[in-house]
Amino acid sequence: MSEETVSVAAVTVLSVLQQAYFSLQVISARRKFSVSPPSTVGPPEFERIFRAQANCSEYFPIFISVLWTSGVFLSPGVSSVCGLLYLYGRHRYFQGYKESALGRLSGMYFSAQVLWVLVGFSVLGVFFTCVRVYLQVDLLRGLIAALSPV
Amino acid sequence: MSEETVSVAAVTVLSVLQQAYFSLQVISARRKFSVSPPSTVGPPEFERIFRAQANCSEYFPIFISVLWTSGVFLSPGVSSVCGLLYLYGRHRYFQGYKESALGRLSGMYFSAQVLWVLVGFSVLGVFFTCVRVYLQVDLLRGLIAALSPV
Amino acid sequence: MSEETVSVAAVTVLSVLQQAYFSLQVISARRKFSVSPPSTVGPPEFERIFRAQANCSEYFPIFISVLWTSGVFLSPGVSSVCGLLYLYGRHRYFQGYKESALGRLSGMYFSAQVLWVLVGFSVLGVFFTCVRVYLQVDLLRGLIAALSPV
Repeated sequence: MSEETVSVAAVTVLSVLQQAYFSLQVISARRKFSVSPPSTVGPPEFERIFRAQANCSEYFPIFISVLWTSGVFLSPGVSSVCGLLYLYGRHRYFQGYKESALGRLSGMYFSAQVLWVLVGFSVLGVFFTCVRVYLQVDLLRGLIAALSPV
Repeated sequence: MSEETVSVAAVTVLSVLQQAYFSLQVISARRKFSVSPPSTVGPPEFERIFRAQANCSEYFPIFISVLWTSGVFLSPGVSSVCGLLYLYGRHRYFQGYKESALGRLSGMYFSAQVLWVLVGFSVLGVFFTCVRVYLQVDLLRGLIAALSPV
Repeated sequence: MSEETVSVAAVTVLSVLQQAYFSLQVISARRKFSVSPPSTVGPPEFERIFRAQANCSEYFPIFISVLWTSGVFLSPGVSSVCGLLYLYGRHRYFQGYKESALGRLSGMYFSAQVLWVLVGFSVLGVFFTCVRVYLQVDLLRGLIAALSPV
């Protein structure tokens, strides 16, 4: 399995690096606005950066779960491309939230849409695999054959 | 591996959909009680919904880890059934917490118990696999054979 | 795959047990300092324990992601040893943070360093696998052969 899904693993590592970058931003905001742990309360600019990172962290395991489910059960390539789009959306969300609470919205909507696409692909992948395993019908291969030019 | 574990993947996708539902509940509570991001402080009813979702999010990666460990190393079927029970427990927890702080307890205890069962199955799965790999003894198959009627 | 990666699964289960221990510490701190849910605000000693657990929870999915990426794509053995070191670092972090905000630092630096090592191993594993899959060159095997005594 490991060879087919290497692109999904690459996106996973990129996503971890992005989370590391967000964490470093919170640490530097703590210094800049003198908010010492364990406090998480401070000026609005600090709280926006803190909440942006907390929100990205919260969605990280959900993102990884659907990235791998659609990568393993539908297509590693399609899943990796969606993964990259999601990371781009999260980047825009974080940079926008840093500026203002309203600034987070466009990146938030974009990454939410990509996440829904990955959820949809996961549902399709699980559905096709169930049909293949329990009904011995390979719908996905049939669909690709039907859509391919002769 | 992907065909054997498709039921575990199905529970994973369901669990992601449940998290999405909880997140949408927080968004609608933010609107109802006029608590704009990044603030997370508001009337008790808002804070209960916010904490319910935060708690479910926090346990999500732990749940996914033991679901897959016991699914891959012990049994995908048993693991998926426990996964469904856990999701049911989390549903009761969230609905109960929305009503009152005490209301969360029965769902919390139930989902914690199911999580411990999944942890136990993961420990067993890892133990049986280690014994099989390092001592060349298939305890699990022996156990099933011993328990089966002739 | 499941037999090769059983040591990674064992570290995963240990890590879940550690998270369970941290959660139980928060529950007992809530009782000791009379901080009832959904509130997360209380005396500094409570807030330190609460933040210590929240921080470990936040890093849990990141840790699991790089543990498995480096375990599957580079080496399960090396990855598991790093995983154990990380859990030791998190233990020191939690115990230190319980005492004082400064007390968290040595465990925090140690576990962050181990996490970076796992990120590095994941990058290497993904890189070696890409080179093997797309260029048909097995760099990792060549490297091990070059470093082995005749």
